[in-house]
Amino acid sequence: MMKLKRSARIAELTRIFIENPRTPFQLSYFSEQFDVAKSSISEDIAILEEYFRERGLGEVITTAGASGGVKYIPRLKIEEAREWMLHEIERLAVPERILPGGFLYMSDLLGETSFIRGVGKIFAEAFAEVKADMILTVETKGIPIALATALYLNIPMVVVRRDNKVTEGTTVSVNYVSGSSGRIQTMSLSRRSVPQNSRVLILDDFMKAGGTTKGMINMLKEFHAECVGVGVLVEMAEPVEKLVTDYISLAKLSEVDEVKQTISVELGSFFKIFEK
Amino acid sequence: MMKLKRSARIAELTRIFIENPRTPFQLSYFSEQFDVAKSSISEDIAILEEYFRERGLGEVITTAGASGGVKYIPRLKIEEAREWMLHEIERLAVPERILPGGFLYMSDLLGETSFIRGVGKIFAEAFAEVKADMILTVETKGIPIALATALYLNIPMVVVRRDNKVTEGTTVSVNYVSGSSGRIQTMSLSRRSVPQNSRVLILDDFMKAGGTTKGMINMLKEFHAECVGVGVLVEMAEPVEKLVTDYISLAKLSEVDEVKQTISVELGSFFKIFEK
Repeated sequence: MMKLKRSARIAELTRIFIENPRTPFQLSYFSEQFDVAKSSISEDIAILEEYFRERGLGEVITTAGASGGVKYIPRLKIEEAREWMLHEIERLAVPERILPGGFLYMSDLLGETSFIRGVGKIFAEAFAEVKADMILTVETKGIPIALATALYLNIPMVVVRRDNKVTEGTTVSVNYVSGSSGRIQTMSLSRRSVPQNSRVLILDDFMKAGGTTKGMINMLKEFHAECVGVGVLVEMAEPVEKLVTDYISLAKLSEVDEVKQTISVELGSFFKIFEK
Repeated sequence: MMKLKRSARIAELTRIFIENPRTPFQLSYFSEQFDVAKSSISEDIAILEEYFRERGLGEVITTAGASGGVKYIPRLKIEEAREWMLHEIERLAVPERILPGGFLYMSDLLGETSFIRGVGKIFAEAFAEVKADMILTVETKGIPIALATALYLNIPMVVVRRDNKVTEGTTVSVNYVSGSSGRIQTMSLSRRSVPQNSRVLILDDFMKAGGTTKGMINMLKEFHAECVGVGVLVEMAEPVEKLVTDYISLAKLSEVDEVKQTISVELGSFFKIFEK
């Protein structure tokens, strides 16, 4: 390919890093692609490194050795995430979202690209250090959240099914008590989807008593895999005693009043950690 | 914020465009953000415009007027998409994927970030001109494909449910004949999710006879919305006569032989259009 000028190289490197977070690239790869000396690429990367760091967008890390290379780790400032989430919570707390039975309509947000990107970025930041090999979620509404986070963490997403599908091959099924219905239900997971000793991050859209999450943790035991973190978008304040203890939420819903048409929702436990 | 040098501005503009495709930005927004004159921003954007065009990555379009601004439209070269898809088809045609009943295991690919990004890019390219307002898919395996495409097209994704959920509010249900089971099934969609006169793109992971897609098209009629395109990742070669006529596929599966342990899969109709 033709020789690129510095500005075009900076654009191309930025694009490659943003589109492929946490993916190691060899300097020689860039130097061949751009037809310039490695030293020029090093200078370009130094410029980008400074830019990402100063903007609080993350780090560009260079590792030595045969499997080494340069990669971009996206990061997010907690204050920025907090501001963004507070704004989204306002959008969540409108009476139009109240459904019969005191449920909250959220499906539109889960299909909205900017919302899903934002949630994915926050979870990727929250679990930046847990070294997860994959993300596990349960169909259906957890999928957009899990996928967006997977894109930022550059790890695969695996979906637990609520029933047994022929297209999943051999599956493992576990029973669990769903918090919203209080009934015993079954979830199943394809045998080949989670290798032994995997480090697994569990994400979901909603947690009431934590029965579904507990089910997923039990499922992982069957696969001899380890749960290294649990994150939910919205948790219910009640019941206070959940079936899982170690999890973070981005928002906490304490009340949906069908008569008064009011919703009480606040920042979730992830943000509380940083409050004084 | 502090004054940025040209290289940092190029990096920041690239990041903003790549992370927010098809989103219009005012020049004055950039000029305030970067604390430089609009003329400098115009020069930066001209550099990027040339870079995106020469690399075949898309266009930077400037529109005049109050609602105008500058936006990045990602594009993809068909030959590149074709090369990529041929490589993925090889990964699809391995005997380990054959499941009892002649089904093909694809769940791993649908949770793999690079695969999902690639499929999303191709569908965004295939439907770049249809001016869709939203993407409709049906749970479960269509969701990653629909979401990835939605991220590139910068439009919302809406999920049709296979059953009726309390968290969806008032829903519309339609019956359809599923090609894989041959049975009559029901799908439902939240009343508030698709406004009248919406232009809707339908995406799914798989099509056999097209019964599910037909159901979604019928569903859209109930919403007085218009289907402006149909795309599936994999279609079955048989039956040749499908219930839908106007659709594209990225791959076509003609045979899964459980005895011989062979899979016959080729490029789908989207790529055939460009062949001589």
